[in-house]
Amino acid sequence: MEWKILNEQMLHGGDYNPDQWLDRPDILKKDIELMKQSHVNAASVGIFAWSALEPEEGRYEFDWLEKVIDNLYNNGIYTVLATPSGARPIWMALNHPEVLRVGPDLVRNQMGGRHNHCYTSPYYRQKVWDMDKKLSENFGKHPGVILWHISNEYGGECYCPLCQQEFRNWLKKKYGTIEELNHQWWTAFWSHTYSSFDQIEPPLLRGEHSVHGLVLDWKRFVTDRTVDFCAWEKAAIRAGGSDVPVTTNLMGFYNGLNYFKFRDVLDIASWDNYPFWHTNPQDESQVAITAAATHDLMRCIKQEPFLLMESVPGVTNWHPVCRMKKPGMHELSSLQAVAHGSNSVQYFQWRKSRGSSEKFHGAVVGHDGTANTRVFREVATVGSRLKKLPEVCKTNVKPEVAIIFDWENRWALGEVQGLLNVSKEQSKNYVPTVLEHYEAFWRMGIPVDLVDMSCDFSGYKLVIAPMLYMQREGIVEKLRSFVEKGGTLVGTYWSGLVNENDLCFQSFAPYGMQDVFGLYSEEIDALYPDQRNKMVMSASGAEYELRELCDVVHVSTAQVLGTYKEDYYAGNPALTLNFFGFGQAYYLCARADQEFYKDFYEEIADDLQLERALDNAALPHNVTASLRKSDEEEIAIVQNFNPFPTTVSLENAVTDIETGEYTTHIKLEPYGIRFLLKDNVM
Amino acid sequence: MEWKILNEQMLHGGDYNPDQWLDRPDILKKDIELMKQSHVNAASVGIFAWSALEPEEGRYEFDWLEKVIDNLYNNGIYTVLATPSGARPIWMALNHPEVLRVGPDLVRNQMGGRHNHCYTSPYYRQKVWDMDKKLSENFGKHPGVILWHISNEYGGECYCPLCQQEFRNWLKKKYGTIEELNHQWWTAFWSHTYSSFDQIEPPLLRGEHSVHGLVLDWKRFVTDRTVDFCAWEKAAIRAGGSDVPVTTNLMGFYNGLNYFKFRDVLDIASWDNYPFWHTNPQDESQVAITAAATHDLMRCIKQEPFLLMESVPGVTNWHPVCRMKKPGMHELSSLQAVAHGSNSVQYFQWRKSRGSSEKFHGAVVGHDGTANTRVFREVATVGSRLKKLPEVCKTNVKPEVAIIFDWENRWALGEVQGLLNVSKEQSKNYVPTVLEHYEAFWRMGIPVDLVDMSCDFSGYKLVIAPMLYMQREGIVEKLRSFVEKGGTLVGTYWSGLVNENDLCFQSFAPYGMQDVFGLYSEEIDALYPDQRNKMVMSASGAEYELRELCDVVHVSTAQVLGTYKEDYYAGNPALTLNFFGFGQAYYLCARADQEFYKDFYEEIADDLQLERALDNAALPHNVTASLRKSDEEEIAIVQNFNPFPTTVSLENAVTDIETGEYTTHIKLEPYGIRFLLKDNVM
Amino acid sequence: MEWKILNEQMLHGGDYNPDQWLDRPDILKKDIELMKQSHVNAASVGIFAWSALEPEEGRYEFDWLEKVIDNLYNNGIYTVLATPSGARPIWMALNHPEVLRVGPDLVRNQMGGRHNHCYTSPYYRQKVWDMDKKLSENFGKHPGVILWHISNEYGGECYCPLCQQEFRNWLKKKYGTIEELNHQWWTAFWSHTYSSFDQIEPPLLRGEHSVHGLVLDWKRFVTDRTVDFCAWEKAAIRAGGSDVPVTTNLMGFYNGLNYFKFRDVLDIASWDNYPFWHTNPQDESQVAITAAATHDLMRCIKQEPFLLMESVPGVTNWHPVCRMKKPGMHELSSLQAVAHGSNSVQYFQWRKSRGSSEKFHGAVVGHDGTANTRVFREVATVGSRLKKLPEVCKTNVKPEVAIIFDWENRWALGEVQGLLNVSKEQSKNYVPTVLEHYEAFWRMGIPVDLVDMSCDFSGYKLVIAPMLYMQREGIVEKLRSFVEKGGTLVGTYWSGLVNENDLCFQSFAPYGMQDVFGLYSEEIDALYPDQRNKMVMSASGAEYELRELCDVVHVSTAQVLGTYKEDYYAGNPALTLNFFGFGQAYYLCARADQEFYKDFYEEIADDLQLERALDNAALPHNVTASLRKSDEEEIAIVQNFNPFPTTVSLENAVTDIETGEYTTHIKLEPYGIRFLLKDNVM
Repeated sequence: MEWKILNEQMLHGGDYNPDQWLDRPDILKKDIELMKQSHVNAASVGIFAWSALEPEEGRYEFDWLEKVIDNLYNNGIYTVLATPSGARPIWMALNHPEVLRVGPDLVRNQMGGRHNHCYTSPYYRQKVWDMDKKLSENFGKHPGVILWHISNEYGGECYCPLCQQEFRNWLKKKYGTIEELNHQWWTAFWSHTYSSFDQIEPPLLRGEHSVHGLVLDWKRFVTDRTVDFCAWEKAAIRAGGSDVPVTTNLMGFYNGLNYFKFRDVLDIASWDNYPFWHTNPQDESQVAITAAATHDLMRCIKQEPFLLMESVPGVTNWHPVCRMKKPGMHELSSLQAVAHGSNSVQYFQWRKSRGSSEKFHGAVVGHDGTANTRVFREVATVGSRLKKLPEVCKTNVKPEVAIIFDWENRWALGEVQGLLNVSKEQSKNYVPTVLEHYEAFWRMGIPVDLVDMSCDFSGYKLVIAPMLYMQREGIVEKLRSFVEKGGTLVGTYWSGLVNENDLCFQSFAPYGMQDVFGLYSEEIDALYPDQRNKMVMSASGAEYELRELCDVVHVSTAQVLGTYKEDYYAGNPALTLNFFGFGQAYYLCARADQEFYKDFYEEIADDLQLERALDNAALPHNVTASLRKSDEEEIAIVQNFNPFPTTVSLENAVTDIETGEYTTHIKLEPYGIRFLLKDNVM
Repeated sequence: MEWKILNEQMLHGGDYNPDQWLDRPDILKKDIELMKQSHVNAASVGIFAWSALEPEEGRYEFDWLEKVIDNLYNNGIYTVLATPSGARPIWMALNHPEVLRVGPDLVRNQMGGRHNHCYTSPYYRQKVWDMDKKLSENFGKHPGVILWHISNEYGGECYCPLCQQEFRNWLKKKYGTIEELNHQWWTAFWSHTYSSFDQIEPPLLRGEHSVHGLVLDWKRFVTDRTVDFCAWEKAAIRAGGSDVPVTTNLMGFYNGLNYFKFRDVLDIASWDNYPFWHTNPQDESQVAITAAATHDLMRCIKQEPFLLMESVPGVTNWHPVCRMKKPGMHELSSLQAVAHGSNSVQYFQWRKSRGSSEKFHGAVVGHDGTANTRVFREVATVGSRLKKLPEVCKTNVKPEVAIIFDWENRWALGEVQGLLNVSKEQSKNYVPTVLEHYEAFWRMGIPVDLVDMSCDFSGYKLVIAPMLYMQREGIVEKLRSFVEKGGTLVGTYWSGLVNENDLCFQSFAPYGMQDVFGLYSEEIDALYPDQRNKMVMSASGAEYELRELCDVVHVSTAQVLGTYKEDYYAGNPALTLNFFGFGQAYYLCARADQEFYKDFYEEIADDLQLERALDNAALPHNVTASLRKSDEEEIAIVQNFNPFPTTVSLENAVTDIETGEYTTHIKLEPYGIRFLLKDNVM
Repeated sequence: MEWKILNEQMLHGGDYNPDQWLDRPDILKKDIELMKQSHVNAASVGIFAWSALEPEEGRYEFDWLEKVIDNLYNNGIYTVLATPSGARPIWMALNHPEVLRVGPDLVRNQMGGRHNHCYTSPYYRQKVWDMDKKLSENFGKHPGVILWHISNEYGGECYCPLCQQEFRNWLKKKYGTIEELNHQWWTAFWSHTYSSFDQIEPPLLRGEHSVHGLVLDWKRFVTDRTVDFCAWEKAAIRAGGSDVPVTTNLMGFYNGLNYFKFRDVLDIASWDNYPFWHTNPQDESQVAITAAATHDLMRCIKQEPFLLMESVPGVTNWHPVCRMKKPGMHELSSLQAVAHGSNSVQYFQWRKSRGSSEKFHGAVVGHDGTANTRVFREVATVGSRLKKLPEVCKTNVKPEVAIIFDWENRWALGEVQGLLNVSKEQSKNYVPTVLEHYEAFWRMGIPVDLVDMSCDFSGYKLVIAPMLYMQREGIVEKLRSFVEKGGTLVGTYWSGLVNENDLCFQSFAPYGMQDVFGLYSEEIDALYPDQRNKMVMSASGAEYELRELCDVVHVSTAQVLGTYKEDYYAGNPALTLNFFGFGQAYYLCARADQEFYKDFYEEIADDLQLERALDNAALPHNVTASLRKSDEEEIAIVQNFNPFPTTVSLENAVTDIETGEYTTHIKLEPYGIRFLLKDNVM
């Protein structure tokens, strides 16, 4: 098994497409030379190579691939071997149109693009099985092949008759009887009562969208179908005899799939990270925080170190404006991933293609084909730094704080008709809200997990559940138990409204949690984007700005920590605290400004003595610290997102892993990042 | 006949969907209890109940409905009984796809949503006939049933082959010969000459839109088809033996149907009112004025008291931002309808559904199912106030002022290519312009009718015709006669350009009215949204801002009251007055600011001694007064749209109908509204 | 041959649609009378008259047209005779749906609108051939017919099976083998390798867009198909026996067709000009410059005088806001065309139609049908001025400066994924950038040609090539030779990246020109719309604002004239100059502000002693001068785009052609324009 490699050295490399250059041995030779020069030790091969592997139906050509893998291996470079299912060859689309997706308008796509196969098509499944199994048979035991890269950035959906039928089967399995489905979906509304499962259509463009339970189940079905397809590919690989671990490259907060459902299929999580640096060069923090939180989310899928499978040298070709990364930012952005648990820095792409839509996407090697570029040199620097960090591979991130981010809740919030229809597409700003809570901890250098309702909360000191509109089965019991046993819970407005099928509870909100929070919500006001209210803190008189949603609650046992200042609910509670069992539960009634989250969570962090990456260190503005640890070691990673140098002063000296320097004064270059071994661990 | 009830007591109630709770007798029992508690005396039942009434084709289940109606009646609550044609059951869509609408792209809808039946489908018509007739036979003579609520918010259009054929028949009936159609539509332009009626297609998405006469006739056809469908439903009810009056709930300024064409089908007009309160909490007047004008428009369809069929307790679920109504606003908003002629306050909806798209739409009873909410208490207050106002039912609103708002003119303005294409979708701001004229009277407390070109103007002192671009048959004669006999007419720029088929008159504008206004228009300039001109008043030197459209006119007999200040037409007339017969006609050359309308109409109101709701009372800012009267009584209704208290001082004392107070000092609460019986009537 | 007429007198007239008034002899008679009154000498007839010419299939009615042409001729008015292919009669669409275009979604249009025929349909081609040939036979030798107006504003595309097959044939002819196509399109990317030409589909809505070579070739094919259709119509005319010259009315910078490909088909270029005057009445210069550049572009198609085929009296009906032209602007706008090489001022339209979509489009004669309007009088004034300018017809515009504007480069820039995706639709602001360079010369009164890469540069002193991203075959050699032989070249950032099939060069940019410019570009940064950099001039210290794209270059032999002030490339070259052969080449690294272009080109103009329309004259702000000349004469045309009068002082006296005044002080009315015969020519 190749797990060992993944745990012993940082991978450095990226997507490599020799299939575009098979007529250019000079280029292929130059690639190896430049890879060595840039400290690359892993190349992802074959991702879109189906045309080269099977140029016409049934005729397989694997020789070129064998040569590539051998050649890489002989030069000390591992292969991350892809299954090519992300893009079909043209002959397949023409001979078997059933592989082409059908849209919600019931029109079948033409051939073109990528990521556009029907995941139900028996023919496509068979062809993928054959291809993957053959790849496994041929290369699955090659010593150079250390990881399977299944397909590429799974996504999208298909409404063809085959997928529709699978959806009906899925519903039948879930609900058992049509009566139960009618009840959960509340179809009596507008006379949408179904007589049988056969009558059900997915949410077609010009069909049914008013039944939210239907829309929600369709999204769940899409995830399950995709996970099933991924499992199918994995099974083909295993059938071919390879037991090399598998991954697929995910896409962070991508809305189309509930990534937590990939937990059991993947051996290791990996993802593609493309932050929008320099949108605001004066303050990179919002970009940095989003990237940090996404790394944490991706890590939480397996709760183990992950791989940064793609990132860009230079700049992408699809950002609205493609700003080059300024000097230093490539190192910081790459190693930030490692700080949050990645055991690799990999790129899309090794070499720019000469044509087609991604020819100007950043790459290690440009059209000039040389090492004489800033981009190449910065990549080489990252490579040389990664070589010095093998011990980081053995550590993981183990936070005491969890924020609940749940895809199904997000989808449900996106379907809600009401409150803030202006931000319907943004699921009522659910993700930005989650990130606002996250930011407070990032600025304190406190590690955080991003988990969904299916996860285990028992190990945390603090659980934060912003806008927990939907309560999936078991979550109420888990949260109650968490608080009862001594945990601290932060809940907010617009929580506890519906069950997992979007069926309203017959109760004031938050359902099942009123005694935990010591209050109930009677009504909720929504504010126009330019309207504001304020919270006045009862103890200090401090004021914070409130916006978007304002819950009007009635307290029973809760104590009021802050009140509204304005509108007809002026004087009503805006922040409360309730003791329940051995624990405590805060309730925040409205979306607050960042100043509030900062003050609020700093106080909680002190109260709960939450572990910080750097104890007692005052972190300068836009400087953060992450923490990776094993049973033996604790490594703090300090990151300066400012375009100027700064210094962090510590109480206890630490050892810089790369330089060996032992110091309490951590100097950071502009966009500097340092890996520091802490003394204070047994 | 049940007319008596409608004239003797204010209805209070709303949409009630027991069909969603047939398995919950506890809920149905609780409903009755809460209805009594909130002074509800009318429930609208069965609006979307087709699935419950006919669960499969031909199997009718009316027992539950009978129990509901009986139960309501036994508890003193009347039933407004709906025909369920607003939403089909699913079996019908699947078994008879012809009932599904076809879009302008010639694609047939899937099942889903509501309000989506083809109004031509013989099968659908037959099924509706059967259903309505059976409902009539079963419940049409029930003493509890006082009104038929036909279908729900008719709207939309269908381009299926059946509807297309009906359209061709309609055209043949209208034009007689294809030559006449070719002439009226001016089809020689771009070689669009038709050889026969069979060649005509409606304005399909990728078909013909350049022939404005075609587009206009299609819109007329859609109205006529819809009215015909409504008449069909009424006939089924009558065939079933019921002579209870019928209504259908309209939607105010809805652009899709010419509501004046429903005049002869409906026994009473009703509509659904959802104002956007608190968009700007500092000044509610624009929302209040829009609501007021819409009530007046809906009243003018029958020129009799109407019903407020739907309104929201709390807040809707479809406003861009769903602000809760602040305390007091629910009373004001509800009784504002009564002030303008409504004999009811009814809600959508009685109880929130547990699922589907409207589950968060405001309701009297929330998901908590209790009376312990602000919303419930405010509804109950409205109910108790309505009980004190039975004599208001016997009065009507009888203005001396009419503003012409004409749907066909609006459609034609919407099709005009030219002038202000930036506001094409808004019909060149026709509705806002109408409301600007209206606002001046609202602020003076002078009642206004909103009528279309088909109405009778002979009873008014003042008729205002903004942007009368299209002159439908007979309007020129009616307006000429109105002025000749002593009436005062206000006309404006962009009037008298085309006949009812959008065929240009071969004349300078305004066609047929040049002697009435004493001028003609040579050309018209359009201004960009940020550009302005000014009007200088000849007498006072006062200046007003002008925008959008600037008519360049030449006067013959008219006197010039104001001139342009800027641009190449500086010094040209901007406002004129002409005497014609025993009357007079003003002509306004450009869209003016509100200050102008205020000063202009105040002077006219004094000149013509227009009747005000409160004689000689100075109304505070954002306070208005309405007037309802009968032969015996005059009731002034004063409304304070400010969030603070205010007082109105009168010359003559009045009696508060609810409290009996007799006073000249009318104190108004924040959002307060009072019904005052005037002394000065015989 | 009728060329003589076109070279001897200015045409004045426009689109005339007697086919809409065949039942109104009074109108037709009045037309002649009014034409004479407005000095009209040319009427464009029959443009959309197919319905009138062939009311049903095979039945031709030409009598009315004969009468119209005779009548015009007998009254001294020439006919510009149109082929009616721009709009089909309805019977043709119904009987032969193949004539209807198919969209990129593979849906066939319904009948309606215009400009919507499939240009491949054999039936349509046959019908057009028959019609055009018959028109030629009947009227092609009529002494009144001086020009053929083929079709109208060709544009759009069709994706029907017939067109798809033609596209495949076109590709086969271009590439020869599928291997070569695969290489040039780089189809190995995403496994899009084609096995045969039969597999290729055009860029369908839901098909292939990622292969830029495909998209680009489709656009080229569309141009070639359209040119082929135009040639087909010309051939039909010639087959009918007429040798009268042909034109078709083009649309300036229209993105859909590469107009330079019409060079060989048309005998004379003509176009339709509709500037957006008075968008900003304080400064008309941007509108004036756009119009000026477009005239120059249209002239360069044939490098000979052209015709202004359409323009509007009054105002169009399709501008977002339709501002009337202020007094004087109609003369200026009309004669500006003449200043840039037009030998006509023609209008759309003579008389407003009574109905349909263009009924409010400006016309010489309005719905009133009289001469008593400002618009009519201004048209008549233009007519009387044109009569005095016959000698201008014999001159042409002969610039020393050329700016390269290339449609294929524009298309390629529009397809580029990367850099500035926010302005992707605007081809990365290619056209505005070209106009910024142009503006500097317009303000100096220096004539400019706008040419594409297929043109001959050898006659120019200065060639400017903004954003020459694509290098079509031969351009590198032409530019190298141009500089080598002594020419001055200005190149910019984002040049020399790809070959004509959008295949990247394997080189730093600019490909093949690094020795010419003495530098190469390593990378390019893109700025958000609100971000700026600055250029500091090495010599003067002057600073200019830079934006959008910032090239980071390395100089070899070039000298640095200016450097970046900010960001990580501060101090790097921003403007360079290199001597090469007998010439020199500037390289501008970023998009600059207008101040830069002004200073930069003023210095170059002095250095190269570029010819100005008015030597040594200081042109007031927003005043420009154009130059037309023959071997015998030089005529300067001074144009004042200010709404106030101004004066231009000259060193040498000139003669006003219209008034005979001989003076050095040129007084200009607001929006004034004067034609001045210069003395200083042999």
